[in-house]
Amino acid sequence: MAVVVQDIVRADPAVIAALGAAGVATVHEAQGRIGCLASHMRPIYAGAQIAGSAVTISAPPGDNWMVHVAIEQLQAGDILVLAPTSPCDNGYFGDLLATSAMARGCRGLVIEAGVRDVRDLTAMGFPVWSKAISAQGTVKETLGSVNVPIVCAGQLVEAGDVIVADDDGVCVVRRADAEAVRAKAEARLAGEEAKRRRLAAGELGLDIYDMRPRLAEKGLKYV
Amino acid sequence: MAVVVQDIVRADPAVIAALGAAGVATVHEAQGRIGCLASHMRPIYAGAQIAGSAVTISAPPGDNWMVHVAIEQLQAGDILVLAPTSPCDNGYFGDLLATSAMARGCRGLVIEAGVRDVRDLTAMGFPVWSKAISAQGTVKETLGSVNVPIVCAGQLVEAGDVIVADDDGVCVVRRADAEAVRAKAEARLAGEEAKRRRLAAGELGLDIYDMRPRLAEKGLKYV
Amino acid sequence: MAVVVQDIVRADPAVIAALGAAGVATVHEAQGRIGCLASHMRPIYAGAQIAGSAVTISAPPGDNWMVHVAIEQLQAGDILVLAPTSPCDNGYFGDLLATSAMARGCRGLVIEAGVRDVRDLTAMGFPVWSKAISAQGTVKETLGSVNVPIVCAGQLVEAGDVIVADDDGVCVVRRADAEAVRAKAEARLAGEEAKRRRLAAGELGLDIYDMRPRLAEKGLKYV
Amino acid sequence: MAVVVQDIVRADPAVIAALGAAGVATVHEAQGRIGCLASHMRPIYAGAQIAGSAVTISAPPGDNWMVHVAIEQLQAGDILVLAPTSPCDNGYFGDLLATSAMARGCRGLVIEAGVRDVRDLTAMGFPVWSKAISAQGTVKETLGSVNVPIVCAGQLVEAGDVIVADDDGVCVVRRADAEAVRAKAEARLAGEEAKRRRLAAGELGLDIYDMRPRLAEKGLKYV
Amino acid sequence: MAVVVQDIVRADPAVIAALGAAGVATVHEAQGRIGCLASHMRPIYAGAQIAGSAVTISAPPGDNWMVHVAIEQLQAGDILVLAPTSPCDNGYFGDLLATSAMARGCRGLVIEAGVRDVRDLTAMGFPVWSKAISAQGTVKETLGSVNVPIVCAGQLVEAGDVIVADDDGVCVVRRADAEAVRAKAEARLAGEEAKRRRLAAGELGLDIYDMRPRLAEKGLKYV
Amino acid sequence: MAVVVQDIVRADPAVIAALGAAGVATVHEAQGRIGCLASHMRPIYAGAQIAGSAVTISAPPGDNWMVHVAIEQLQAGDILVLAPTSPCDNGYFGDLLATSAMARGCRGLVIEAGVRDVRDLTAMGFPVWSKAISAQGTVKETLGSVNVPIVCAGQLVEAGDVIVADDDGVCVVRRADAEAVRAKAEARLAGEEAKRRRLAAGELGLDIYDMRPRLAEKGLKYV
Repeated sequence: MAVVVQDIVRADPAVIAALGAAGVATVHEAQGRIGCLASHMRPIYAGAQIAGSAVTISAPPGDNWMVHVAIEQLQAGDILVLAPTSPCDNGYFGDLLATSAMARGCRGLVIEAGVRDVRDLTAMGFPVWSKAISAQGTVKETLGSVNVPIVCAGQLVEAGDVIVADDDGVCVVRRADAEAVRAKAEARLAGEEAKRRRLAAGELGLDIYDMRPRLAEKGLKYV
Repeated sequence: MAVVVQDIVRADPAVIAALGAAGVATVHEAQGRIGCLASHMRPIYAGAQIAGSAVTISAPPGDNWMVHVAIEQLQAGDILVLAPTSPCDNGYFGDLLATSAMARGCRGLVIEAGVRDVRDLTAMGFPVWSKAISAQGTVKETLGSVNVPIVCAGQLVEAGDVIVADDDGVCVVRRADAEAVRAKAEARLAGEEAKRRRLAAGELGLDIYDMRPRLAEKGLKYV
Repeated sequence: MAVVVQDIVRADPAVIAALGAAGVATVHEAQGRIGCLASHMRPIYAGAQIAGSAVTISAPPGDNWMVHVAIEQLQAGDILVLAPTSPCDNGYFGDLLATSAMARGCRGLVIEAGVRDVRDLTAMGFPVWSKAISAQGTVKETLGSVNVPIVCAGQLVEAGDVIVADDDGVCVVRRADAEAVRAKAEARLAGEEAKRRRLAAGELGLDIYDMRPRLAEKGLKYV
Repeated sequence: MAVVVQDIVRADPAVIAALGAAGVATVHEAQGRIGCLASHMRPIYAGAQIAGSAVTISAPPGDNWMVHVAIEQLQAGDILVLAPTSPCDNGYFGDLLATSAMARGCRGLVIEAGVRDVRDLTAMGFPVWSKAISAQGTVKETLGSVNVPIVCAGQLVEAGDVIVADDDGVCVVRRADAEAVRAKAEARLAGEEAKRRRLAAGELGLDIYDMRPRLAEKGLKYV
Repeated sequence: MAVVVQDIVRADPAVIAALGAAGVATVHEAQGRIGCLASHMRPIYAGAQIAGSAVTISAPPGDNWMVHVAIEQLQAGDILVLAPTSPCDNGYFGDLLATSAMARGCRGLVIEAGVRDVRDLTAMGFPVWSKAISAQGTVKETLGSVNVPIVCAGQLVEAGDVIVADDDGVCVVRRADAEAVRAKAEARLAGEEAKRRRLAAGELGLDIYDMRPRLAEKGLKYV
Repeated sequence: MAVVVQDIVRADPAVIAALGAAGVATVHEAQGRIGCLASHMRPIYAGAQIAGSAVTISAPPGDNWMVHVAIEQLQAGDILVLAPTSPCDNGYFGDLLATSAMARGCRGLVIEAGVRDVRDLTAMGFPVWSKAISAQGTVKETLGSVNVPIVCAGQLVEAGDVIVADDDGVCVVRRADAEAVRAKAEARLAGEEAKRRRLAAGELGLDIYDMRPRLAEKGLKYV
């Protein structure tokens, strides 16, 4: 049951970069309001905005052995995504692992568990989105798997899927959909700018989106 | 059942400003230790301290249509206060809605649900106190109401009530009580300064507040 | 049942300082992965790193009277540690109490409840690790105890134990173990630096820690 | 601030009885899908189904003094509804208080806190809907209020409002709306029976409610 | 995006029956300790033990329209599995829907949201495993999908997968693995009986499983 | 660090039996309102009421190896008390372990984690108070300790302490205090009976406990 899948397929780096530039909210909307990880996944510091290819880790509660195994599988531009096999808030990852991951070009970590050494990670500029911050250490006794499909914070993540993360949280884009989502995200961004100007000038969404007739039809009463 | 109340009465702007200057903890104490919203309502960035008149929104879970409706009701100095009709952490509000609300003079948002585009909102200086940060989008299908009484994070809020919010959270003051609470808050602040100086000089609260006899009477033993 | 223990024994200040310099994660590992308080104990601002001797408070829910009593027991270098006798998120502590505690040399507060005036506390440089931020005030009606053993956020804390706290959370070290833990923590830090350099140079933990044979023995498959 | 309102107005007993017979889900739907208390309010035993007039209690955390005060205000057919002024799971109520409340004709307790002696309460047939079951005792030191408006589990409850509670939870009906809601609830029940028979016979909701055209119009695809 | 997949493949009924007879804990162990839904998924009554083929529903928060759509897809022996697209505790399902589902041979419901009419459902013998019990009603405004892959309570569920549920919770078995898991589950049950007898006779697991040498090797000290 | 303490001292069986007969709420009050474990510790079935001597287990998350070790230390009348070293809801314990524990006279299990096979445990009459019910299995890879002091659900428990558990939850009594607490508990029970009769006859707690003067002095207003 414990396997490491070595040859994973990644999306086009240009597409990944474009998704990262668009950010989580836009990408999520562009792909039809799917893919957001649960809102308890929070960044350890504000301001990071990244996208990359998922290298997935399925790990037992309280055991970070497979993080070491996964780091060997990293390529430049990847993001580690770890889901424990049952709920756990232990600190699976700290500054030494971050040093190792950065040495291989890793862009960040998404972990539905805990992380530690957050001051060091902040200073290193290694962003992490986690469920908890915890110094509680882990053991290295039980195998897990790397680059198998996992469920992380309520979303299926497969190795090579595109992860987008920023201050709003984390979103996953299926690798096969990445190019199409990029196009829709960029179209969405283009359209937003005009709306933003109109709204800033005092026009109402009620008018810009022509909502009044439908509100009336549904029965909204002004009193 | 879905109504928009258009003519709401607001408190005196000078009173609102004074309550905002006093801050949440002082205002809460001044009105008899009531009015604090639940502690899960947290600001998206540190340092904002505002007060304003509540424009209330009752919205279905996962549906932000009524935010557009509410924005038309905003006057300068108002604060949007949204409670979903059942627990929800979706991102009802982002940078476009904030642009629109700011264009009408809105001072901020209090929402017992999620908010997104928090980096943009921070850059815009539009403060939000929310239960969650989430990029998860919403629909516009089901009506709610605007400026009806709502329960938000455990407190009743009526349109025109004064909302005070800072890094300690959010407090609501009944509109009819605002002037009286302002007076008590200012008296409280005046009294605190003298106490602060005595405490800073090393005097003990035990002595300043004459607590020792009552502690002894209750039976406290020093061993 | 309500007692104040006045003569508590503290650890050697040099040992305390060394534990504070090592930080929570290192100290926790050095003492055998024990002593971390639950991960819901979070700092009110980033960047504080302290160690000190615990002055413990057992207080009823919603009643901060014993904080005043405890402040009299503080010596320079102490840390207040408060556990409510049942779960509570009220704001037991604010800027006046912090002023008083700082006047006695207190280094910070660890409280499995709420704290308020967090902007002031941040400006004063008085660090707090708490379960909640809440302006909800408390009463002064019911006794508790000071410097008795308490359970705070899942850990037993006795008066005089060493508390270490930083951005990763809070750890407690038994007073009698402090010197031994300091030695192990410093040894650990010394060893980490060499590993950090090797990892930064691209060596893998799999090789540095010689994990490959044991992984193979346990049955890990590469596919 | 601490008051006991003695003369409260109650709804017509026949209306209350009819609402109780209809049950929570039906009453909630009949009044437009409002009034449900949060789903963490659970019965201590299965099978109770009651309705009655709210006698409200606002009590400090960990202090049950006002329960004694409230019991004096009970009339036959009333239901006690208690909300602590901040979150608390203490056991405010046990078999002695239930004995006293039953002696006055009280039909049950709704409490957003804890209850204890649940085996005895079950044997006595005194139903309770609570947030927690806890033996943790309380003090009698701080005043609260009786028969003032409270927010309990997310809903405003005023003295004399009708409380309906069963295995699905708790719902509040404004006293002034009780008669109208009763009528709608009974109409709803009458209509449901015919639908139940058709569904039991294998007809689909899709057909009974004529949903197919609207589903198609919204874009549902069968593949 | 809103689709109904009509032709789903189900596992062999005999295999499903055998998995149901084995129960959740045994099936979970037999397939390598995977597949358990989160522990917040609890049965509305004790004693039900079922297995069946998943008919999956992805539904918006607070909107149960797709349940009606899914019921048309049910075949005898199926189990409905619903995941909202964001966290929600509304009561999506009650006695009328259960009547309809039972008319089509449905064995039960697994829902990471709320359910209502639980007394009726219990009387009908229609088992439900849910995150909440709530009378809060839903709307029928927004499409979702039926028989697409969903994540429910932390586990991926695909249409036609085998769901096993009992008092211990819920487990999912990939359809393709069902036959193999059945074999392992039955082997496991056979082996357990002998162990149970030896343990009942007072033998220790330490001896039956020969744990003492490995405990000693790991360093366990008896004092 | 991993130790098994073999010779533990237990309280007098007659005292333990008396504490069990008094039940959790009475024992907790008798010892000064201390000792209740957190209210998330719930029985897997209603009606069990036990007391016994604690055999404590400190176990890693997701690893139940030490349960086997602890069972060897059981004597008739003991209760297993397990705390994981970090939060975990895995099912550490099921019917085989219960069979083994019962063979040694164990009266039940208190576990701040998960338990499984709850239908079997109910049929066997082996009571468990747990944080969760979960079929998720555990490994046997990492040592813990037996009969060392642990913190379980917020309370310190030492080997040989008396555990009392019933439908209200769990309470711990220090072994050295057991005899004194028994005496107070029995006095309390004796006094309650007279009060119960008076309350049942319609007398008010306000009068029986002479509360009116103190309520008036504190400022309670009747309006």
